[in-house]
Amino acid sequence: MLTESLSLKEEIVKYKDNTFTSCVDEIAVEFPLTIFINQVEFATMVCSPENLDELVLGFLASEGVIRFRKEIKDMTIDRDQGFAYVELYKDDFINQQSFSKRFIGSCCGKSRQFYFQNDVRTAKTSMVTTTVTAAQCLSLMKRMQADSLVFQNTGGVHNAALCSTEELLVSRSDIGRHNALDKLYGYSLLNGIPVKDKILVFSGRISSEILTKAAKIGVGIVLSKSAPTDLAIRLAEDLNITAVGFIRGTSFNIYSKPERIIL
Amino acid sequence: MLTESLSLKEEIVKYKDNTFTSCVDEIAVEFPLTIFINQVEFATMVCSPENLDELVLGFLASEGVIRFRKEIKDMTIDRDQGFAYVELYKDDFINQQSFSKRFIGSCCGKSRQFYFQNDVRTAKTSMVTTTVTAAQCLSLMKRMQADSLVFQNTGGVHNAALCSTEELLVSRSDIGRHNALDKLYGYSLLNGIPVKDKILVFSGRISSEILTKAAKIGVGIVLSKSAPTDLAIRLAEDLNITAVGFIRGTSFNIYSKPERIIL
Repeated sequence: MLTESLSLKEEIVKYKDNTFTSCVDEIAVEFPLTIFINQVEFATMVCSPENLDELVLGFLASEGVIRFRKEIKDMTIDRDQGFAYVELYKDDFINQQSFSKRFIGSCCGKSRQFYFQNDVRTAKTSMVTTTVTAAQCLSLMKRMQADSLVFQNTGGVHNAALCSTEELLVSRSDIGRHNALDKLYGYSLLNGIPVKDKILVFSGRISSEILTKAAKIGVGIVLSKSAPTDLAIRLAEDLNITAVGFIRGTSFNIYSKPERIIL
Repeated sequence: MLTESLSLKEEIVKYKDNTFTSCVDEIAVEFPLTIFINQVEFATMVCSPENLDELVLGFLASEGVIRFRKEIKDMTIDRDQGFAYVELYKDDFINQQSFSKRFIGSCCGKSRQFYFQNDVRTAKTSMVTTTVTAAQCLSLMKRMQADSLVFQNTGGVHNAALCSTEELLVSRSDIGRHNALDKLYGYSLLNGIPVKDKILVFSGRISSEILTKAAKIGVGIVLSKSAPTDLAIRLAEDLNITAVGFIRGTSFNIYSKPERIIL
C-alpha cells in the first residue's frame, strides 16, 4: 500500500470510433488513512496521499478536536499501513456525541438550526473587510486550474487554494473535496499563516459542509468553479461569507454578500 | 424548512462583460435529514428532498442495518422537521463499532484489506454474465443526462440510473453522490426489482465507496461520466465488476473486466 504520488499508471481499454484499444492511462490514487488519537481509533478517511500531516491537522481542527497546532504533542504517519498516530496533551479530546448529533436549537432560528453541534462551537461569523475585483476572481480561478497537473491528467481530484487578491499562496489537491480544504487548513495552522484576509478558491461545489469548513478556516470569500446549494447560500448569509460560483471563462455568479466583489 | 422540490429560485448577482446585474437563478436544494431507528438517533445526512423513503431504505441497506424491506415495521418521514423515524422488528440493529472501524484482515490480502468491517459483510462479488454493447453504453449515458432537468438547470446534483441494456428503468438525482445510489438501492428494495442483470449509470466519479455501493446493490456493470480512482479499480477487479468511465460523446474507457463490453 506504499504510494508516493497522487496518481499512477494503469492499463485500460479505450473505446473510440467503434474500436477497442489497450493503452496506459493516469489514474488518481485513493489512499485510506486511519487516524488514532492517544491510541484510540478516531476516524478513517480516503484521500490523496500527499501532505498527510496537513490533512490530519486540518481534519482535527475542522472537527473541533484541536484549535491550535500547539495542542499536538506528537504526530507520526505510517504510510505503509495508512495510519496516522496523533498524541494530544489533553486526554478528554472527544465528546463522541457532539460529532454526530445534529444541533437543533430553537433559539438560533434560520439556517443555524442545521449545524451539527460541533460546528456551532467552531464556525465563526466572518468580520473580513477584504475586497477583490471581478478580474482578480477570474484570474485566481484560472491560475488554480492551471496549477493542478493531477487534475488535468486524471480528471479525478479536487483543487483548493488559499490566495491573496493577487496570487496563489498555497494550492492543494485531493480526491476528496473536504480533504483539499482540510489540507489548506492544516497548512495555515502548521505555518502560522493568518487566513482572515485570504481568499479560498475551490474547484468543487459549495455545499453547506464546504461553506461551514470555509468559516472554520476563517476566510470571508469563497470562489468556486461550480454550483452552490440553497443551504450553503443561507449559511453564507448567516456567517457573512461572500460565495461566488460558476467562475468560468469571463463570467461568474455572486450568491451572498456581493459587496466584497468590486469592478 | 418545508421544501417540496429539488431546486428553488434565488436572487443572485451575475458578472459578465465587466458588468454586474441582478437576476434570478435556479439553485439545488440541500435538505438535512436525521434518521432515528427504534427511537435512537442513527445518522444525519444532507440530501435532495425527493424520494426520501427510498433514500432511507437504501441507506440502511447500504450500511448493513437491514437486508430486506420486510425487516422494517414502520417508517414515517416528517418533512417539516427533516426527521425520518424507522421502526425495525429487531432491536439489536447496530454494532456501532463495525460502522466506523476499518477492516484490516491479514488473511484477505489485496484490496479487501481496505474495506470497512461492515462492507465485508455486505459487498458481494458479482456473478453477472450480462453484456452490453459500446453503442448502448454511450446511449444510456446520453439518455440519463437528458433526463435530468435539475442538473441542467442548477449544475448542482448527481444523477444515477438503473438500466437494462436497452433503456433507463429508474433515474434518481441528489446533491450527494452516495444518496443518488442509495435512492436506486431503496427503489429496488421497495419494489422488489431484481438488479443482477441491470446496469448502473452514474454521473459522478467512481471512488472505492461508490464501487462498494454498486457491489452492495448487486450490479455487475458501472458506467460513469467521470474518472475512477486506483482503489476503485482494484476493488472492481476483486468484486468482478466492470467499471467504465469518461463516457463522453463517442468514446469511453474500460478500467476492469472489459469482457462485459462488446462491439
